[in-house]
Order: sequence, then C-alpha cells, then structure tokens
Amino acid sequence: MAEDGDALAARYRRVRERSLALVAPLSAEDAMVQSMPDASPTKWHLAHTTWFFERFVLECDPDYRPYEPDWHYLFNSYYQSVGPMHARPSRGLLSRPSLEQVLAYRARVDAAVDAAFARGALDEAARRAILLGTHHEQQHQELLLTDIKHALWCNPLRPAYRDDLAPAGATTAQPLEWIAFDEAIVGIGAPAWPQAAEFAYDNESPPHRVLVPAHALASRPVSNAEYRAFVDDGGYREPMLWMSEGWARVQAEGLRAPLYWDDALEREFTLGGMREIDPQAPVCHLSYFEADAYARWAGARLPSEAEWEQAARMAAVEGHFADDDRLHPCASAAEGLAQMFGDVWEWTSSAYGGYPGFRTLPGSLGEYNGKFMCGQWVLRGGSCATPRDHVRASYRNFFYPPDRWQFSGLRLARDER
Amino acid sequence: MAEDGDALAARYRRVRERSLALVAPLSAEDAMVQSMPDASPTKWHLAHTTWFFERFVLECDPDYRPYEPDWHYLFNSYYQSVGPMHARPSRGLLSRPSLEQVLAYRARVDAAVDAAFARGALDEAARRAILLGTHHEQQHQELLLTDIKHALWCNPLRPAYRDDLAPAGATTAQPLEWIAFDEAIVGIGAPAWPQAAEFAYDNESPPHRVLVPAHALASRPVSNAEYRAFVDDGGYREPMLWMSEGWARVQAEGLRAPLYWDDALEREFTLGGMREIDPQAPVCHLSYFEADAYARWAGARLPSEAEWEQAARMAAVEGHFADDDRLHPCASAAEGLAQMFGDVWEWTSSAYGGYPGFRTLPGSLGEYNGKFMCGQWVLRGGSCATPRDHVRASYRNFFYPPDRWQFSGLRLARDER
Amino acid sequence: MAEDGDALAARYRRVRERSLALVAPLSAEDAMVQSMPDASPTKWHLAHTTWFFERFVLECDPDYRPYEPDWHYLFNSYYQSVGPMHARPSRGLLSRPSLEQVLAYRARVDAAVDAAFARGALDEAARRAILLGTHHEQQHQELLLTDIKHALWCNPLRPAYRDDLAPAGATTAQPLEWIAFDEAIVGIGAPAWPQAAEFAYDNESPPHRVLVPAHALASRPVSNAEYRAFVDDGGYREPMLWMSEGWARVQAEGLRAPLYWDDALEREFTLGGMREIDPQAPVCHLSYFEADAYARWAGARLPSEAEWEQAARMAAVEGHFADDDRLHPCASAAEGLAQMFGDVWEWTSSAYGGYPGFRTLPGSLGEYNGKFMCGQWVLRGGSCATPRDHVRASYRNFFYPPDRWQFSGLRLARDER
Amino acid sequence: MAEDGDALAARYRRVRERSLALVAPLSAEDAMVQSMPDASPTKWHLAHTTWFFERFVLECDPDYRPYEPDWHYLFNSYYQSVGPMHARPSRGLLSRPSLEQVLAYRARVDAAVDAAFARGALDEAARRAILLGTHHEQQHQELLLTDIKHALWCNPLRPAYRDDLAPAGATTAQPLEWIAFDEAIVGIGAPAWPQAAEFAYDNESPPHRVLVPAHALASRPVSNAEYRAFVDDGGYREPMLWMSEGWARVQAEGLRAPLYWDDALEREFTLGGMREIDPQAPVCHLSYFEADAYARWAGARLPSEAEWEQAARMAAVEGHFADDDRLHPCASAAEGLAQMFGDVWEWTSSAYGGYPGFRTLPGSLGEYNGKFMCGQWVLRGGSCATPRDHVRASYRNFFYPPDRWQFSGLRLARDER
Repeated sequence: MAEDGDALAARYRRVRERSLALVAPLSAEDAMVQSMPDASPTKWHLAHTTWFFERFVLECDPDYRPYEPDWHYLFNSYYQSVGPMHARPSRGLLSRPSLEQVLAYRARVDAAVDAAFARGALDEAARRAILLGTHHEQQHQELLLTDIKHALWCNPLRPAYRDDLAPAGATTAQPLEWIAFDEAIVGIGAPAWPQAAEFAYDNESPPHRVLVPAHALASRPVSNAEYRAFVDDGGYREPMLWMSEGWARVQAEGLRAPLYWDDALEREFTLGGMREIDPQAPVCHLSYFEADAYARWAGARLPSEAEWEQAARMAAVEGHFADDDRLHPCASAAEGLAQMFGDVWEWTSSAYGGYPGFRTLPGSLGEYNGKFMCGQWVLRGGSCATPRDHVRASYRNFFYPPDRWQFSGLRLARDER
Repeated sequence: MAEDGDALAARYRRVRERSLALVAPLSAEDAMVQSMPDASPTKWHLAHTTWFFERFVLECDPDYRPYEPDWHYLFNSYYQSVGPMHARPSRGLLSRPSLEQVLAYRARVDAAVDAAFARGALDEAARRAILLGTHHEQQHQELLLTDIKHALWCNPLRPAYRDDLAPAGATTAQPLEWIAFDEAIVGIGAPAWPQAAEFAYDNESPPHRVLVPAHALASRPVSNAEYRAFVDDGGYREPMLWMSEGWARVQAEGLRAPLYWDDALEREFTLGGMREIDPQAPVCHLSYFEADAYARWAGARLPSEAEWEQAARMAAVEGHFADDDRLHPCASAAEGLAQMFGDVWEWTSSAYGGYPGFRTLPGSLGEYNGKFMCGQWVLRGGSCATPRDHVRASYRNFFYPPDRWQFSGLRLARDER
Repeated sequence: MAEDGDALAARYRRVRERSLALVAPLSAEDAMVQSMPDASPTKWHLAHTTWFFERFVLECDPDYRPYEPDWHYLFNSYYQSVGPMHARPSRGLLSRPSLEQVLAYRARVDAAVDAAFARGALDEAARRAILLGTHHEQQHQELLLTDIKHALWCNPLRPAYRDDLAPAGATTAQPLEWIAFDEAIVGIGAPAWPQAAEFAYDNESPPHRVLVPAHALASRPVSNAEYRAFVDDGGYREPMLWMSEGWARVQAEGLRAPLYWDDALEREFTLGGMREIDPQAPVCHLSYFEADAYARWAGARLPSEAEWEQAARMAAVEGHFADDDRLHPCASAAEGLAQMFGDVWEWTSSAYGGYPGFRTLPGSLGEYNGKFMCGQWVLRGGSCATPRDHVRASYRNFFYPPDRWQFSGLRLARDER
Repeated sequence: MAEDGDALAARYRRVRERSLALVAPLSAEDAMVQSMPDASPTKWHLAHTTWFFERFVLECDPDYRPYEPDWHYLFNSYYQSVGPMHARPSRGLLSRPSLEQVLAYRARVDAAVDAAFARGALDEAARRAILLGTHHEQQHQELLLTDIKHALWCNPLRPAYRDDLAPAGATTAQPLEWIAFDEAIVGIGAPAWPQAAEFAYDNESPPHRVLVPAHALASRPVSNAEYRAFVDDGGYREPMLWMSEGWARVQAEGLRAPLYWDDALEREFTLGGMREIDPQAPVCHLSYFEADAYARWAGARLPSEAEWEQAARMAAVEGHFADDDRLHPCASAAEGLAQMFGDVWEWTSSAYGGYPGFRTLPGSLGEYNGKFMCGQWVLRGGSCATPRDHVRASYRNFFYPPDRWQFSGLRLARDER
C-alpha cells in the first residue's frame, strides 16, 4: 500500500474537513432537501460517508459499539450484503437525526478513526478501507454539490449556494482544432488496487490493450456558443439528430436547451445563482442524448473511452477543479489538447461495462461498482466540482443517458482514414 | 358582526400564538418535512396562514408593501383568482425561506395587524377577513398536527412530536347504548355569516329543514377494543363488507389495521411516540372505507350528517380537544350521548355537497370551500387536535374516502322502524 | 311476481335477441376492442350477460353442467362472492373464446333457459334471477353502444358503427322555460323488488319521503347551441366556474369541448360516424364537472335527484330511446316539461348513495349495486341508447364525475324563494 | 447487387408467402391482440411490412396511387422522416382495417411489385429497397411469433398457436466443454451493403479489427437442467448475483424462473401450448439480467460479441430454425462448438452500439437501426423462430436488458490466461 500511515491519516482528515467546508454555506433546512429520487440531501451525504467508515473500518473491531445502531438502516446506501436500507426516494423525509446530530456523528467517528491511527490499531484491511472511503467521500462531495444545485434550482426563489463565488473571467477559448491519432493498440486501465500500490477503483482494472482506430479528437470541449448555434439551428426540433429514446424525451419533457438555461437562453443557474451564460465556457448539464445529438449535428461523434484515455495519458491532470472554488466551468486559453481534466465531465460513446477480466473487490465492497454496469454511459475527465486529486486518466464516471444534473459536457471526435 | 374590535384583536393574538406554541417542539428540519402530497410542512402552514392575513387584510390597504412579494407565489394555497401558485407536492422542497424567516414574517404581519387594530384602521370587510383568517388558521393548526404526525411516523426512528404528553388515563368507557330518534323534520345548518353575527363557514349555510327518518344513534364512538374484534374476525379479508373501491385498496396496499397500529396490533404511533393501544379509547385513523366496513360488520351503518347534527344540537361542545394537550383520543366515562365533540372526527354517510340554496362567499374567498364539494365525505364533531372554540354542531369537515391520517373514527347508527 | 311465465319468457327472448341485433353491424375484430379500462369489448358484454344467466339461473340446478367451466373466471365481472375473476383492463386481450364461440355459448344457454321455461322447471328464485338478468342485460346493451362508440373513435379512421342511422331531423327545440315547484315533502324511490311485484333495482328502494325546497326546473335539457355559448365565452378557461378537481382535469387533459366534438367545434363523432353538430339537440358526452361548470356559468345549478324524480313522476316515459334506432340525442319540439326521459342522461347534484333503510339484495346479487355507492354521481332519465322499457322515474344511473363516454347531458335547476 | 432480378423476385415471393403461412393458424381476433406495448398485433406486422414495400418501393413511382392513403399513418412504425404515426401502444385497438382488408392490401401490393418486376420497372434503388424489405419482413416474422406467443399466454385459457408442432425429441445434449481461444486481433463485421454485394444490415458494418483477449467459450448453450440448478440453489434470492437493476426487477415483479415456466417449474408455455420442460434443451426466455446472474453463479461470464462472432465464423449456419417448424428450442447431440445458430438467441456482454466508422443508410432508411443504439444489448445467433437464411455470423440482434419474450438464452464464456 503506497500511502503510509501518516499520509493516510492526513488524507483522511483533509477529505473529511472538505466535506464540512462544503456544508458550511447551508442551513440545516437546505441540507435536508431531496429534489428528486436520483439526488440525496446534503445531510444524507454527510452521514452516509461517515457510516461507510464506521461500517467498513470501525466495526471490524469487535469491541466497537456503533454510535446509533438504528442509523445503519438509514445511511446504508445500496450494500445489500450488510443489511436492508431506507428507501432512496425517502431520504428527504429524515428530519431526524438533525444536521447537528449528523455532525456530531461525524466528529465521533473521526475521533475514533484518529485514535485508531494514533495507536496503530489499523491493520492493512482497515487502512485500505480508509483509503477507499476517502475516495468514496470525494465522489459524494461532487454529488453533494450537484444535488444541492438541483435542490436550490427547484426553489422558485432560485437562491445561490454561495454568494462569494468568483464569476467567470473574460478568457477567450482557443479555436477548436482536431488532433489526429493513427490506428494503434493502446493500453488503458489501471492495475487492480490494492494489489497495486496506486489507488484506483475496481472498474478501472485490469489494464488491457485495445485496438483503437484512426481518429481525431477536438482540442477542447464544446463551448456554450457552439451549443447555442445547435439550438438556434433547430437541433431540438429535428428527430433525425437524436437517438429514439432521446427524441421521445425531448418531446415528452419539452426540452429545448441544457438544464439550468433560462427561457431566453441568456442566463443560467449556477451555484452562485443566476448568471449570464459565458459563450466561451464549456457547455454543461447535457444529457448523453443531447451530447450525442450535438455531435451528429456537428458532423462528428463522441469519443470512445479508449480514445479519450489514450489522449488523456499524455496530458497533465490540470484544469478547473472543485479546489479552485469557482464551481462552474470556465473557458481556458490553453493551446493544444486542452481541458481534458476538470470543468466538465465528457460523455463518451462507451456504455459502462466491465473491462476484460474485470473482478469486483472482495466482500461487501464488491457492490461498490460492479452491479451498476448496465444501462449507464461512461464520462471522463472530472469537472469543476471534482476534487483535483480524485481524478486520473483511467477514471471512469458513469450516469444514465438522460441524466443532466451533473456537470456533464462533451468533446467531439471524428473518424480519420 | 358579533365580536367587537377588542375581542377580535384578542382572538387574533390568541390564535396566532397558539400556532407558535405548536411549532415550538420542532426543529427547523422537522418543520420542513412533507411526507405525502396531501400533507404540508409545518413551516408552510405557518407561512400560508400568515399570507392569508397579508393578502386578504393588509393588502386591502393600497399603501401596504408586501413583506416579500415573491412569497405570494409560494404561500398561496389554491386561490386561483389571486394568482398562480407553487405546486403542492413540492412544498417540502422549500428550504428557503427558512423557519426563522417565516417566523419573522409572522411577527411582521402580526405587528401590522396589531397596529391596524390600534389605530382603528380596519373596516368591516377587514375585520371579517381577520375573523375568517383566525378560523382558517385553526384548521391549519389541526392539519399541522396530523401532518407532522405522519411525517414523523415516516421516519424509521419513529420520533415523538412531544415527550411530555399525558398518557391515556385508566378510564373505562360506558357500554354502548342506542339512542332512538323518531322520524322528524329537523333544522340543520347555520345562518350565513357575515350577514349573521355568529361565525360559520359558508358550507354550513343556509339553515334548512331535512326530513330525517326514524333511527338510533350509538351513545359513543366505536372503541379500539371493538374495532380489534372486527380485525380479529377477518374484517380485512371479507370483500362483502367493503365498498368496491375500499376493497381494492385493502388488496393493493395490504391494509390490515388502522393507520399507525403496529404489526402486533398492540401499539400505535402517537404524537407522544409509540404507545400501548388503549382498548377503551375511540378507534382512530380510519378511512371512510374502514369505518363503513366496520359498520356493516356490526350490523349497523354510519349516520347521515343530518342525523348527527340533530343529536349534536342537544349536546354541549365538551370533550377532549387540542386545548387539553393530550393530542390523542381518550375514553370517556360520560353517560348518555357522549363524546359527540372532540376525540375523533366521526365519518358520516353523507357525501360533501352544498346545502340547498348554498352560496359561496363573494370574491376570492369564495374559493374557500365550494370548489371542493365533489368526491369528499363529511366528518363531524372535531377531534383531540381541534381547538375547542373552532367546532360547533353545524361544523362540516370533509376528506376523501381513503384518507386515514386525520383523527378520524366513527359512531354507529341504525334504522329504526 | 308481476310477470307470469309466458311474459317473462317472451321478455327474455326479446332482450336476448336485441343484444344479437346490436352486435350484427360489428366484425369479430370490432367486438374485441377495449379502448380503456372503463370500457369492455362487445364480445365480453355478450359473454358476461350470458354467464349471468348460467351462473345465477342454470347452475341452481345441480344437474347442470357448465358450458365451459374455465369461462367462469373470464366472464365474472365483479362478483367476489362467486369466485375470482379476470382483470378488467385485460378483457381486450381475449381473442379466445372467439365471437363465434361466444355466440354459440349464448345459443346454448338460451336453449337451456327456454327448455326450463318449457318444462316449468324454474322456481320463483330462478324466475326472479331471469327478470333481473334481463334488466342487467339491458344495462350492458347501453354500455355496449357507448363502449363501441369510444372504441371506434379511438381508431384514427373514425369508422361508423352503422351507416344506416337516421340523421338528426330539422326539429327546432322550444325556448327554455322554468317550471316552478314549491317546497314539499315528496315521495321518491320504488318499493323493494321482489317483495313488490314491479321490478326495480335495490338501489331505488325503499320508497321514502324527502323534504324538497322550493325550486324551478328547466323545461328541457341544455342544447348544443347553449353549451357552445359557454365554450365561446371562455368557460374552459375560467377556474372560478369549476370544481377544483374538474379544473385540474381541464388543465391536465387540455379539455375544451365535450368529448367527440372536433377541433373546429362543428362536427362530432356519432355512432353513424362524423356528423354536423345539431345546435338544437341536447348537448351530450359531458362529465359531471362540465355539467356543473356550465350550470354555474348559467347562473343556475344541477337538480338534486329528488327534484328530478318529483318532476319525472308527472311525465310519461316518452322520448328518444335505443328502440328508435337513431342512437344519438335529438331535439324535441315538445312543450312544457320535456325530454325527461331518453336522449341524454341528466347529471344531478346528488352523490350516489343508499336511500335511508337501503338493503342490498340477499346473497351474491347483493354485490350488484351497493358496493359502488361511493364516489359516483347520480344521472337520471335514460338516453338515446337506453331501451325504452328499461328506465323509469325512480331509475338511478351512476358514473364517476370525470366520465364522459356515456350519453350524459344536463338539465338546469335553480332555487326559488 | 448480388441477387439478380429473378432471384430477388423469387425471394420476395417466398418471404411474403411465409408471412401468410404464419398467420394461417390464427383467427382475425387472434391477429389483433396486443398484449403489451413492446409487442404488436399479428395484423399490424402483416400491414406494416406491406407498407414498407409500398412506401419505399412503389411510391418511388410518381404515378403510383397509395392503396389507402390513411393507412400510412397507421402502419408507419417509427420513420419520423416520412410522417407522423399511430401511437405504438394503441396498435391493438385497430379493428379496422380488418385482417381481411390487410390481406387484400398485401395481395394488391404484391401484385404491383410482381408487375414491376415483370416489366423491368425497378431501378437499382428499388431493388435494394425490396431486398432490404424482405429481410425486414423476416425480422417481423420472428416478432410475430414471439408476440403471438405472449398474447396467447396472457389468455388464462393458454391456447396453443398450433396443435401440430412436433414435440421435443429425446435428444441428449453433449456435456458442456470449454473451447479455448488465445488473445488475437480478429476481424468482425460485414462490408457495408449495398456497396458490397452481400446483404447485411448497416449495423454490421464496417468490418473492423478488434483485439480479443484470451478466453474460452462453452461448447453449447446453457440447458434447462443447468438453469434449474441455479433456481434451486436460490439464484433468484441472492442479490450478490445480480445487476442492481436486475435485482430491483426480481423483487418488484416477483421473478423466480424464466418467463413461461409454470409455478411447479415443470411445464412451460410453448407455441404448441403447455408442455413438459425438456431438461436437455437450451433454456429460453431469459432477460439479460437472468443470463448475467446465471453466468455469475456459474463462475463464468457472458461472451462479448467479438468473442462470439470470432467463433461463429468457424461454424456453419446450422441448427433449429423457424423453417424446421418446431418453434421451440431443442437439444442437439452435435459435438464441438455446437448450436451457435438457431434454437436460442444468445445474450452477449456487449451493449448495442455503432462499430467504429459506422454510417447509417442514407435517407429515411437511416432510421432503421442507428437510432436505437442506446440502452440495448446485443444477442447473437438466431433462434428457433428465425428464418434460416436471415441470420449470419455478423448478425446483431438487440433488445433491452429486462426483455424476456424473445427466444433468448445464453452461452457461457470465461477468461483464460
């Protein structure tokens, strides 16, 4: 295991404190809203991530007494193998425990983990569960932001999450260029952790080779201005551009622009409230169907995840992340292959599935990723709401094709011959 | 108008303070839960009742500036004639305004109303709207209690609303007796207010005569022990006892006991938490379908509202009300026609409709009652959650036949010849 | 029992033959369509009415062998006490038995009933069940027509049920007049059959007295021209005219005219295909919500069923019935209280419930009417699709307030003082 | 184009006659049943496939007068670019046109196509549309069988489609063996038609190379006996074996065996009625979720479509097809890699998507396949209901993961190292 005890303890503290910072702008009432079954209340995110450490680290010690045994049922998310769980769509009904009690729970679990670190009581398995738990919590930090954004947007008052977020700068994006790749056998994926020292989720392994055809990749994500041209050209009225299910949703839900754009297509809801849409910034809050339709309209296509990862391996993990405290995608003036990481998750053309030879983690944690490998699509690269040290070239995010509440955009690809 | 200015101002203050007392045991989080579309969050009740005074009293003064004009949309309930409104099932998503802000809103509106009283600025129409508003708020006080009861019950932790509620006493109910009534033309209903001095809702008027057949009325509501016999006798398994729609719901929802009874049929959820079921107390939280099926099983029927009101006119408005601070139905040792008022609302056999010659209140307040006269059933007599001075012999409450979250029970009737 | 054996046998044959005449214009495919869960396929109506005689008459003879025992499950409608039944919304999936087989089943049962008549094998109970069964079949004859009308209308080709139906004449309706009634105690209802000789459904009994207030009744039903004025005046856009649930449906379903009117409000679908709307004819295919909103717009109200029956007792059962083979409402030039019977069922203001002292028929036939006495509204008078000898002054039809596929219209009433 | 005019005309006639043979055992009523929105009535299949030739072949002749212009709306399936269409779930409501009229429509269109062949009036584009149309019709022939099987099963009488189908023989299947494949770059897919002479759907092209890892493939599909062991071992009760969505469906729908198995797990519904389950025959009517869960339970996995196609290229297109007139999967005594074609479609682990460089057909026929490339899974190899000359090694079938009404089974694969 790569991280020694001190580094792991420091990481644990840093990640845990970051969650507290994220909830700081919110009232207990804000922290309770669940605006749709797909989203969870802030308070639930705080409690569930804590439960994860209690259940998979602390409870390995037979002397540990759970903080509140009844909460196990409330804060288990989907681990069938460790017991039944509260219905997901009802998470927003939990006024008790209060946010204050959940914060006390966090403090108590943190103290227990810290104490275990201090007395060297954590064996290899426990240290692994802690490391996994911190990555798990970072995922929930991003969900916390996207969920609260949706929750606040559902309030007709359209309140901001924070009033102090830096506005978009006046950056001008580079013109879109095409970067060509020849046909090649490329290696993608990451070695299975914890056998390998470097952390990666089970769904990133095993590393394997893929025959990638000749193609070109756009130098940057699609911008708001470019997407606006698609809207203005009638993109939402032309069925030939859409997947059949996507078109059905356009019709049934009356879609005509990305989620959070206003009717005039001039302003958008952000974590800082309603703001002018920056035409230079990457377009965001698109479903897979919208990303795919845009690409077809543009005479291009979405990249496969192998194509994306091949390119990303050449790029540094740089960009606008949650750490930058803007919490909204920004334009970049970088040249060449730009913005592979941060700003917006990029929809790929790849259905989410197991790599050849994929094995889930052993035991209950095997439920972490594997059982969702059906019906979802892979997104790559992280967003303005992702912690910088959470993402990497092999990282695979996944959502359902209609999902729009994540910071999801796209980068074009096209075949070359 | 019966109440002079001082009495009205005192009533206003008393009712408004009572609402604050009801919310005192709750956290801001508790006050935000909406457990089903039929129920509203406590905070919404507090804000909507305040909006009622602002909209129908204060805004009659052209110089009045609304506290927050945007809130009009949030806290209008169903008055189409005064503007559009927030979707009812989404009331639970409103973390903003906060409970604190809503309480400040209440204070500000109360101050404005008090000041208007003080400077004698309220004309006849305004005073009427205030009186109506206090009765309106009392209705919401009862809903606040039934809604928060349901909300807390939806939490697997089953927290109590209050820990200091007096438990049921050891009262033994009287044996059930039948009180006979000959065929008669009886007068029911109340004179239309505000033409008449005494307050009554528009749905109670006009007074009119009804030919009531010979019948007998049970001396007290059906008790938990009696209802338990119905359950034990297979009442929930025998379709011949049920209305067709009621039976469909028994099957679809797996009903087998009143709402809030536990699986062992021994304990029930109350505003004071889980408690032993008192066999002597009136059975409660029944749907119309359950009340009707029980009556059929018992060889009896539900009383019509005219039968009920004829009897109630002979009784004093005495019983266990919200003022008694028990907030749960209790047995009574009273003899003769007992417990007509308080403890449990009594389902009648009468569909809720307008009396002959019924006219709604003029203007927007005409939307108060009339437009709901379809598909609901009349309940009579008030409950343990009703303010004592809110109910009267002519008072008509109404809910849909499947509704079970009110304090709803029944009293038997039967034909005599 | 009033009808002697010969008369009953003749009635049986006549009613049974009428059903065959009704199916004659239809193909086996037409006879299978179920366009919504509320409606049934023609074939099912034919089989169910036959099953009724097999189950409640022939099977009383212990030597009788059911035609196809498996069909019991298919053709039982809602008699829980005689066994389980096929799900109502799935009736349209039954390609087998074929229409031909169902007609053979009818012939076989008819032969058995005829034979029983011939050999005098029918006891009192059997003869009663036969009489009830013929009235039951007449109800289904009307449903057969309204259901096939809806089914054919759902076909974009809009085929006619029959091409040979007489078109509306050029009759001019009389101007609407108001007929005044003083306050009175009136007797309504019919003596309970079979104790009384004259047939009536259980829901019409017992006869009882009702105190009816002073009021006036319109001399004829509302016409298409009058209803069109309501539409043109924005009746479907003014929430203050509607019950709350009715308004919600207007919004959700985009209602703007009676069912079967075309977008131009000039033509309507009839059993004879698309035809010009006759402005003089009674308006038809209204929901209770539409009838109620129209009455409010017109400054009037719907009559109670007692008001309606009091007037109907003075009128002869004359009008346009199914026997007239027009199958569409027509104007009438009759003077005075006109068109109480036939043409259109008239929505009343009365919720459907049991009369004081109501008792269901004993045994399984007790499921016939009683268990539907919740949530439905009473209509009176019969329609152009009702057999003339099926209706009477005391007859109570009942449907749910949103239902529009019956031949349902309205007659206005108003309070007098 | 490979097929010359005579061969194409012969193929046209053969395919069209086969459809008529398939409908022969059915009544007009049978031909109208639509048992779920995913399925279509037999009559609709017959009309739609005919419309395809009328619309895409005959109407290219400007002098052609459509048979019934109104039917265009009824029998267009999903071609948005040629006009609006009847709602899919309402196809079962179309009693008109009758089966007889649809058969007349077929005859008329066939005569017109034959005449065009005879006079040499068909240009290259028309001949291509005819060839595509025959393949299209073959797909619908299989759907016709699976849809009518489901429709008849929904009838509680469980009638057989045909009474003369040969029962399963007494064949004993070979023991399951594993056939190993080394890592290799393999070519899969078919050249794009019509540029290439050989017919293939657009979704099979372009041919491309894939790096396939070392693996082994089972020598035959999983048998009923093997699947029964999974059921008996509690496979439907163990969440760890299932995809998350699959488990949710097991719970919600109470699944415990393949579709069409009876409660005793001994008999199954077939097109020949209820029959004993042959333990040696391939298991059938599984969803992707069931196939995937079985594979996990068996310590194996599903093959990718590249793995499947690599093996299938070595095999002859032999097996039990629709032409064999059994219409139910049978055991095979073949040795080595057996039953790759026919009997049951084999679920793969591959999400259905476009191959690298995929292009849809030009024009309206581009809607044929491409717009469904989201959310479905690939099945390979054809079934007992597939015409023998319709399938090939590169053929890609696709359905949604929960779909069970196709003849869908599985073959195991496993990683080798």
